[in-house]
Amino acid sequence: MKVIAEFTLIPIGMGVSLSKYVAICERVVSSSGLSYELHANGTNLEGDWDEVMQTIKTCHEQLHGLGVPRIATIVKIGTRSDRDQNMADKVASVQAALKPGE
Amino acid sequence: MKVIAEFTLIPIGMGVSLSKYVAICERVVSSSGLSYELHANGTNLEGDWDEVMQTIKTCHEQLHGLGVPRIATIVKIGTRSDRDQNMADKVASVQAALKPGE
Amino acid sequence: MKVIAEFTLIPIGMGVSLSKYVAICERVVSSSGLSYELHANGTNLEGDWDEVMQTIKTCHEQLHGLGVPRIATIVKIGTRSDRDQNMADKVASVQAALKPGE
Amino acid sequence: MKVIAEFTLIPIGMGVSLSKYVAICERVVSSSGLSYELHANGTNLEGDWDEVMQTIKTCHEQLHGLGVPRIATIVKIGTRSDRDQNMADKVASVQAALKPGE
Repeated sequence: MKVIAEFTLIPIGMGVSLSKYVAICERVVSSSGLSYELHANGTNLEGDWDEVMQTIKTCHEQLHGLGVPRIATIVKIGTRSDRDQNMADKVASVQAALKPGE
Repeated sequence: MKVIAEFTLIPIGMGVSLSKYVAICERVVSSSGLSYELHANGTNLEGDWDEVMQTIKTCHEQLHGLGVPRIATIVKIGTRSDRDQNMADKVASVQAALKPGE
Repeated sequence: MKVIAEFTLIPIGMGVSLSKYVAICERVVSSSGLSYELHANGTNLEGDWDEVMQTIKTCHEQLHGLGVPRIATIVKIGTRSDRDQNMADKVASVQAALKPGE
Repeated sequence: MKVIAEFTLIPIGMGVSLSKYVAICERVVSSSGLSYELHANGTNLEGDWDEVMQTIKTCHEQLHGLGVPRIATIVKIGTRSDRDQNMADKVASVQAALKPGE
């Protein structure tokens, strides 16, 4: 089952600057081979359900292994059985609907 | 890795009443053996990461199998390496902090 | 416009134990006069859109005022124009759909 | 109080294709004057708390006005009192932490 997902991981108990932990997750995501996109409020990624969830789990495992005591993550998961769709398609559909005359 | 999680599953394309689909998920959760609690904005559950994620995946699979074409799910995941905590502990900690004199 | 909402507020940069900050928010919510319910992954509340959002804003303001440098909050908002529904109705609808013979 | 936020709005009861409703929200966001970015799982925006929340409220009002009976929206809100930060800064911080030697 293919998913288009987003996750936002918040390390708790490591101070106010989180970018180095987000960077560790980005390396995990990058080495997963999944399509992904970092944005200002999380990371979008797409692929097989199990691979996507394993990637997020690996982020938790790596950060706990580096001493992060507590992690809160928000995941959005979208699945469709009616048709195949990727992340770029979703944005393109909205942009098409925004065109004059539509 | 133990997680305290919450998921909110939204079937899309099946009309405005969603309770029968939520009920199907509740049966999936109930038969998982995980501790859980249905509330007004989702279902809280706790247990091993893989079992929790498999439970949510099974909800998607069952609903797609019943003809739901599109599903959006929001998952909150909390993990801790500093101490063991369950769902009741989280609520009790807040209630203790609310007591007079605290 | 009435909303049924949930918020989960995560203070960042104040250490690993968050219950005292959640308790401060509970006092804000409690004194708002809105119907609410604390659960293991957030607080459900319902009422007028502006009052609900003002309540969450007041939580941010009070916590920043107490020295919390960074806050991440996740809000779920549900609105309906087809019929009036409260938090208890949502849970009851699912429970009715779970009854044998349904 | 400045916020960096994200919202994902899900119209319920209007079929499986949601892009035209997302496009209506994009017009609301665009005419708000706030900085924003559409991505595959939502819209990032930043600005004053009240203006951001009013923008999301206007999306709900417009869609209900067009006959959408039910809407579920997920909002992420980030506020900081320690320093000013915008959406581009957040991504740049992570990218800086990803550079070799860091």
